[in-house]
Amino acid sequence: MWTNYLRKRLPLTIRSLHTLKGNQLDQILMSPPLASLDLPDIWSPNPSSRIIPAIHKSFDDHTTIVLDGKLISMEIRSRIAAKVREMKKCLGEIPGLAVILVGQRRDSRTYVRNKIMACEEVGIKSVVTELPTDCAEMDVQNAIMRFNKDPSIHGILVQLPLPEHLDEEKVLDALCIEKDVDGFHPVNMGNLAINGRDPLFTPCTPKGCIELLIRSGVEIMGKKAVVIGRSNIVGLPTSLLLQRHHATVTVIHAFTENPEQITSEADIIVSAAGVPNLVRGNWIKPGATVIDVGTTPVEDSGCDDGYRLVGDVCHEEAIKVASVITPVPGGVGPMTVAMLLYNTLLSAKRMLNFN
Amino acid sequence: MWTNYLRKRLPLTIRSLHTLKGNQLDQILMSPPLASLDLPDIWSPNPSSRIIPAIHKSFDDHTTIVLDGKLISMEIRSRIAAKVREMKKCLGEIPGLAVILVGQRRDSRTYVRNKIMACEEVGIKSVVTELPTDCAEMDVQNAIMRFNKDPSIHGILVQLPLPEHLDEEKVLDALCIEKDVDGFHPVNMGNLAINGRDPLFTPCTPKGCIELLIRSGVEIMGKKAVVIGRSNIVGLPTSLLLQRHHATVTVIHAFTENPEQITSEADIIVSAAGVPNLVRGNWIKPGATVIDVGTTPVEDSGCDDGYRLVGDVCHEEAIKVASVITPVPGGVGPMTVAMLLYNTLLSAKRMLNFN
Repeated sequence: MWTNYLRKRLPLTIRSLHTLKGNQLDQILMSPPLASLDLPDIWSPNPSSRIIPAIHKSFDDHTTIVLDGKLISMEIRSRIAAKVREMKKCLGEIPGLAVILVGQRRDSRTYVRNKIMACEEVGIKSVVTELPTDCAEMDVQNAIMRFNKDPSIHGILVQLPLPEHLDEEKVLDALCIEKDVDGFHPVNMGNLAINGRDPLFTPCTPKGCIELLIRSGVEIMGKKAVVIGRSNIVGLPTSLLLQRHHATVTVIHAFTENPEQITSEADIIVSAAGVPNLVRGNWIKPGATVIDVGTTPVEDSGCDDGYRLVGDVCHEEAIKVASVITPVPGGVGPMTVAMLLYNTLLSAKRMLNFN
Repeated sequence: MWTNYLRKRLPLTIRSLHTLKGNQLDQILMSPPLASLDLPDIWSPNPSSRIIPAIHKSFDDHTTIVLDGKLISMEIRSRIAAKVREMKKCLGEIPGLAVILVGQRRDSRTYVRNKIMACEEVGIKSVVTELPTDCAEMDVQNAIMRFNKDPSIHGILVQLPLPEHLDEEKVLDALCIEKDVDGFHPVNMGNLAINGRDPLFTPCTPKGCIELLIRSGVEIMGKKAVVIGRSNIVGLPTSLLLQRHHATVTVIHAFTENPEQITSEADIIVSAAGVPNLVRGNWIKPGATVIDVGTTPVEDSGCDDGYRLVGDVCHEEAIKVASVITPVPGGVGPMTVAMLLYNTLLSAKRMLNFN
């Protein structure tokens, strides 16, 4: 009973010592490739009588699991590092990531710095091209073209948002889709949306959310999932990916009437609105899983960078209601970086024909 | 009061005589181009206090409007015909549609026949390439390539589904996106999904559903919409398009638990499951709008073709609960064909630089 509880409720980092065997250890992620999730939609005549696998949990002994995204991502990163070493040994090559950073946004610079450090740690080569805020669109395009052609570069990312005078659409369209490790190119997004197709890359934050859900034993299939926010970077691809995993997905946004009524019926909430404390305790169904993607920088002179990151979820209230939640920082953020490394490795493996 | 009621509740075909003026008459569709719907997601601190425009209707004097898709599509088609004549007069050119039909599926042959007849009626040139069920993928590809290059062809559609041995993905990828009037190419689907982008073409059935909603005065913004089914042809693009119009969209499918509980909270239901009588009276909220996209062929020796088309919605029960519903046949079906003509005209206008 207790083992079962552990297996269901604890992140893989803790479970792995006890339960992972054989070729599972070779796997970097627990979330499956998309293709394996293609199931035919066969409607039963009386849908209410169907049995969907679910976690049954008593809330008399309420325990909320706060997922440690940092710890889980460290495990993933160590597996990526091992694979990179293997690649180097076998082929004499390593994956390469190029980052294009335009302007001086403080949060963007921090994100890029974290990504570069993470690359170094796992042995992935990284190159950063920094461009001034007032650069021309052609400068960004030229940087992209150079990396598109460079065979030592397997992933290219343009740190968003771009300064307003630059056309994000044109810039992203210039990326060679085989190196689009962020998965934001319309072909990759279209193939994420279309049933029966697979994108070359799944966007990093949504992929990180799914990995967290799967590692914490949260059933997705048949569950009610609500995605708060519909950004191209998080909300949209997360809703598409949850649907791939056969959740019943509702996307809520600023025009939604009574959002709290919708979220309070959800088994899984992924919040990516970028509004601190939007999700209060009464927005959450008891026992639900709450993934907080919100990371709004708030001025704080006590912090190293002069600001700290704040989530969408009122953590103190949520922890009393949810069964699984993620903290900010240290929840989804580190997972996003780990998925970027994963996508870069995936791209290199694909281009170099290495398994 | 009564005029107001009329303006809100009656299809444009009836309203148009009274209310349409000036440049509105030049417009073929009432649904706006996507770009105009880009609104920033600004979350108010207390979302429940926001006022969303809504139809307030007493149900003591319950009247259900059954939308006449045939009549509405005839009006749209006559506007398209006028524009085609104008194009011919000004440029000496007309729009051209190529249809590729593989195999002998009875329903596919009927659909193609209807599309061709509709083209003739509005003066659009049409070409059909018929291929045998056991043709090679290369045969389909060659037909596509020929039409891709043909300057007299502005739209190409491959009638789906294809026989199983053919790779639908590869076939659709071969279509030149500028002629993809069905809007199923991943680039068009990706651009439909991504906020701030516009696809070159919006898939015909979803576009037809939105046009029906707008013409019948149904408010979409802020409303709860449920899409039943997640096919690439209808469910997926309809959910994306409803979200573009700022509905709060939930997609339900065969893995959804208690679908009737979710649909019975919806202001708008679009059903595209392909399951006759799936949507019963108790699935519908009183006063809701129900768009029935289901068209399942059922054997019926009394009909000309030996079969008749049956919707997803139990019409007899729905008509007692909904405020607006569509019949099958004669609801969404004719709208799909009208939108195909519209997309073909749009493509020709774009390629020939004609407004």
